Amino acid sequence: MYEIQCRFDSRYAVSLCEKSSLDISNDALSGLVGERRTLLITTPTVDRLYGDGLRRYVAGRNLDIRIEVLPLSEQDKSMESTLAICALAKDCGLGRRDQIVAFGGGVCADLVTLAASLVRRGIGYACLPTTLVGQIDASVGLKGGVNFGGSKNYLGCFKPPSKVLVDPGFLATLPARQLRCGMAEIVKIALVRDGSLFTMVESFGPALIASGFREHAEVGRLVLGRSIELMLEELEPNCFEDRGYRRLVDFGHTFSPLLEAKSGYRIAHGEAVAIDMAMSSAIAVEMGLLDRQGCRRIVALLRMLGLPVQSALADSALMRQAMLDATLHRDGSVNLVVPTSVGSADFVTSHAQVTDAILHKAGKAVAHLAELEEGIRVPSYS
Amino acid sequence: MYEIQCRFDSRYAVSLCEKSSLDISNDALSGLVGERRTLLITTPTVDRLYGDGLRRYVAGRNLDIRIEVLPLSEQDKSMESTLAICALAKDCGLGRRDQIVAFGGGVCADLVTLAASLVRRGIGYACLPTTLVGQIDASVGLKGGVNFGGSKNYLGCFKPPSKVLVDPGFLATLPARQLRCGMAEIVKIALVRDGSLFTMVESFGPALIASGFREHAEVGRLVLGRSIELMLEELEPNCFEDRGYRRLVDFGHTFSPLLEAKSGYRIAHGEAVAIDMAMSSAIAVEMGLLDRQGCRRIVALLRMLGLPVQSALADSALMRQAMLDATLHRDGSVNLVVPTSVGSADFVTSHAQVTDAILHKAGKAVAHLAELEEGIRVPSYS
Repeated sequence: MYEIQCRFDSRYAVSLCEKSSLDISNDALSGLVGERRTLLITTPTVDRLYGDGLRRYVAGRNLDIRIEVLPLSEQDKSMESTLAICALAKDCGLGRRDQIVAFGGGVCADLVTLAASLVRRGIGYACLPTTLVGQIDASVGLKGGVNFGGSKNYLGCFKPPSKVLVDPGFLATLPARQLRCGMAEIVKIALVRDGSLFTMVESFGPALIASGFREHAEVGRLVLGRSIELMLEELEPNCFEDRGYRRLVDFGHTFSPLLEAKSGYRIAHGEAVAIDMAMSSAIAVEMGLLDRQGCRRIVALLRMLGLPVQSALADSALMRQAMLDATLHRDGSVNLVVPTSVGSADFVTSHAQVTDAILHKAGKAVAHLAELEEGIRVPSYS
Repeated sequence: MYEIQCRFDSRYAVSLCEKSSLDISNDALSGLVGERRTLLITTPTVDRLYGDGLRRYVAGRNLDIRIEVLPLSEQDKSMESTLAICALAKDCGLGRRDQIVAFGGGVCADLVTLAASLVRRGIGYACLPTTLVGQIDASVGLKGGVNFGGSKNYLGCFKPPSKVLVDPGFLATLPARQLRCGMAEIVKIALVRDGSLFTMVESFGPALIASGFREHAEVGRLVLGRSIELMLEELEPNCFEDRGYRRLVDFGHTFSPLLEAKSGYRIAHGEAVAIDMAMSSAIAVEMGLLDRQGCRRIVALLRMLGLPVQSALADSALMRQAMLDATLHRDGSVNLVVPTSVGSADFVTSHAQVTDAILHKAGKAVAHLAELEEGIRVPSYS
């Protein structure tokens, strides 16, 4: 097992499993539960795939776990779902040192994080993420959140988990679309921080997606571990976001929230992030911050991974509104993250710098670059 | 203006006003708002008494404040009320540096604290408490909370305000019962920390209650200031309650939550705290931790302040259940706070130490002491 210690909170670590977390001989999950009373929240899909294995492990290890299955799609990411988890915690009689475990994807982690932060003003929680985005992003961060009044993650909290147990084995059953979405977040962190991780994804990304991380398993673990390390490093100096709003991990997350919402969530989060990254890269070119070759490499990789890079919904009006929304959320500055090369990035402070002319040219450039990658079939979202 | 700086969070201070906070020449409220967009939440009662004065101040100072009046009684202390405030924050377009202000009592502060902690994963808030308990306890602490599934404050958060503006002038219109309840919390902090504050309350408490802090105004300010200082000092080493569950400020708060709930909230919080303090003191005597004279002085003061010291609801069964509830909330130990003299206290670690025999004798002792204070008329609660 590979341990990644979180430097800003010594009580929080991420463990990367070498063998299945549900293998009775693997101590990881048992250690995570320990002497604590545990409420485990999972989803119908995860329960169907791994519920029996989990129950065998729990019985074999004689653990004090109550397993509850809740429907937890993006549409269920609401305060109502959070309160349903709180009611279960109350019903279990969880004390302040007890915990809730999220066994599922990003929505499951977001809801469990928020519920755990509310119950008795905060009890512990841990994550056993089953999706790629959960393993390298949603579960690793400190954010819980729910959608409210039509706004994504409008209500939420910051609360570090006590443990995240990353088991790449779960990726074997993940639908390709979800693998692609997770890979978009890996591209995000690679692009702003680590050129060699980007190169690894260029070389192995398609095969990792095609095989659900079963082929090239060692490379897969390297990619996961490095992505998690980079994520934790980026969170460290400003983990509660009270020391400014210039965050490299916001790359791909300026235009995407509104795009997702406007599509009625037909465009998945990772897909919206990919479209946002392509647009942000093209904007960087138009502003003279990135060379055209870099932008072409970025768009080519996204297409190669089967991710969309444009959407008819992402017109100038939406992009401008999204920048205004972000400005409100980032204390008066849009702080648009733009790559300056493969592996480094910078911020565009004011949304006024991104003129309509730049938006127009950037959109055309992305369309042109996408056409260049003819051999690649990607889904189209409009 | 007297400033009490919070030592565990340099961004948080309590200000004690010398002249009315709504006096147009007083900069305090204007300074609290500053350049921030502000949503101010208040209650129908406070609006009726001080709404006009507030609107005159806001207009005269040209402040960016939206005032919203919500019914906020103990029965409204729910997640629904919290979400109503969140929806108003969204409607106001509050950004991450904007704020919500609670202009009301403890319930108003608790709800605004929780709403502010949820909106955009946490925006600022400040308090202008209008009740005595708000001024020296509820608004000064870091806790927000709502009742859930029949349990008091089961869901909540820890979040320091940016500012608490304490204006003793608001106490002039406070009903006597609420003044008595606030005084119970002052007795609490005095009893466990400061014998001379206790003596001040013995000398001036009844007159302060009778006049709504208008008579002996200088002493009144001293009592408020010292209570707030002691409260902040007690919070400091363990303000998020993640460093143990032995807290002197839990004195009077072991039996009282269940007593309040069981009475259907007919027994007010401060009254339940008074009954709890009397019982805890008598338990201390039975356990040889406090002399009888000390206990008599405590019961005498509570009675003199017009507070109840016993209730037919507070039988052995309720007391035992309340200790079990507290044990769950305090990680396996009841940590019952008991006075060892007027001005100091200790903890009874295990609820098993408080036998039925001790509970029975303590109950009889309180009844006997209450009878001794014949000249004092107090309300009776059963």
